[in-house]
Amino acid sequence: MNAILKKLTETLEARKKDDPSKSYTASLYRDGLEAILKKVNEEAFETIIAARQGDNKELVHEVADLWFHTLVLMAHKNLSAEDILNELSRREGTSGIEEKESRAWKAK
Amino acid sequence: MNAILKKLTETLEARKKDDPSKSYTASLYRDGLEAILKKVNEEAFETIIAARQGDNKELVHEVADLWFHTLVLMAHKNLSAEDILNELSRREGTSGIEEKESRAWKAK
Amino acid sequence: MNAILKKLTETLEARKKDDPSKSYTASLYRDGLEAILKKVNEEAFETIIAARQGDNKELVHEVADLWFHTLVLMAHKNLSAEDILNELSRREGTSGIEEKESRAWKAK
Amino acid sequence: MNAILKKLTETLEARKKDDPSKSYTASLYRDGLEAILKKVNEEAFETIIAARQGDNKELVHEVADLWFHTLVLMAHKNLSAEDILNELSRREGTSGIEEKESRAWKAK
Repeated sequence: MNAILKKLTETLEARKKDDPSKSYTASLYRDGLEAILKKVNEEAFETIIAARQGDNKELVHEVADLWFHTLVLMAHKNLSAEDILNELSRREGTSGIEEKESRAWKAK
Repeated sequence: MNAILKKLTETLEARKKDDPSKSYTASLYRDGLEAILKKVNEEAFETIIAARQGDNKELVHEVADLWFHTLVLMAHKNLSAEDILNELSRREGTSGIEEKESRAWKAK
Repeated sequence: MNAILKKLTETLEARKKDDPSKSYTASLYRDGLEAILKKVNEEAFETIIAARQGDNKELVHEVADLWFHTLVLMAHKNLSAEDILNELSRREGTSGIEEKESRAWKAK
Repeated sequence: MNAILKKLTETLEARKKDDPSKSYTASLYRDGLEAILKKVNEEAFETIIAARQGDNKELVHEVADLWFHTLVLMAHKNLSAEDILNELSRREGTSGIEEKESRAWKAK
């Protein structure tokens, strides 16, 4: 897993112990699954609007928001970016390569 | 960028020249932006349903589908996973670390 | 309730006994709640796209599709358009007028 | 058109002249198409969640919210509930009956 997804996974895990009045992510965990899903749905909408507007900078911003909230969802379910990447890898038929890198990363 | 996202980016780019009657991704490009966005919307829905059902394996499957179709959207707009990761990195305030790795990866 | 919503309510109820291989609505009932909700989600998306395109005829078409599928959902849950209208009426503070008409309709 | 949809259509039209700081609907008009569509998307999500929870009272509440916001969208585009009902009617093949009642209603 690359640096930012690894860092984000750690940050999202750490937020579980944070004060919801001070952390946006902690407030999503407190509000629970429906609140998180509502944000996933909202960011999918924002992605669609940005894509139609043809503003690529805004589009990247919204897709990043969408990925971020799916990662909050993963963390809430005790899953992580690694599970998503492994699933994408499994489909690509590159599991061999990915597995090797995954082992290398764990070995670091 | 990690192995699978790099591989997927290359694959999605290569699909632009493939026969839409033989490649699902090529058929999405041919059908255009609205068809791709329709799939993004559908996969967001499937993610929500799977999360509510409490089936983690299915949830990972659907989030992977959602990420995949946002990557098809990125490719259609001549953007890539790297743009999303850079945006997530920028927000995390880890741009220094990410940038270093990014350079290292490009140097490979 | 007006003529078309009354007629649609009766039609949607009658479709419960129809052959799913011959009736679209009957096939939605057979496929169940998730299939119906998937269509509600899809028609909301189509409504958003049509509204952004600025094509009013297409927009009316899509909103009608959205209303239709929420009515299929109502019927699947043994509810009807009348429940929606009563709820809208209750909020409008016109419950007196609506109630009167509702009684008149039932008296017919 | 039945009493409540006629009343709602009039109310939504009147709100166009109201103070956005005092009227929710007027604030949606002021915020524009994207704000209205965001609410349509949100209410579709709430409908899906309520339907899955199996709480019929909540479901009726959310579908009423969804219809309400599609009617705000109609008004914003200078369309109305009547356009939706006419489209539903046209499909049902009951245009004759509907037209007759429509005339009768106008004659009242």
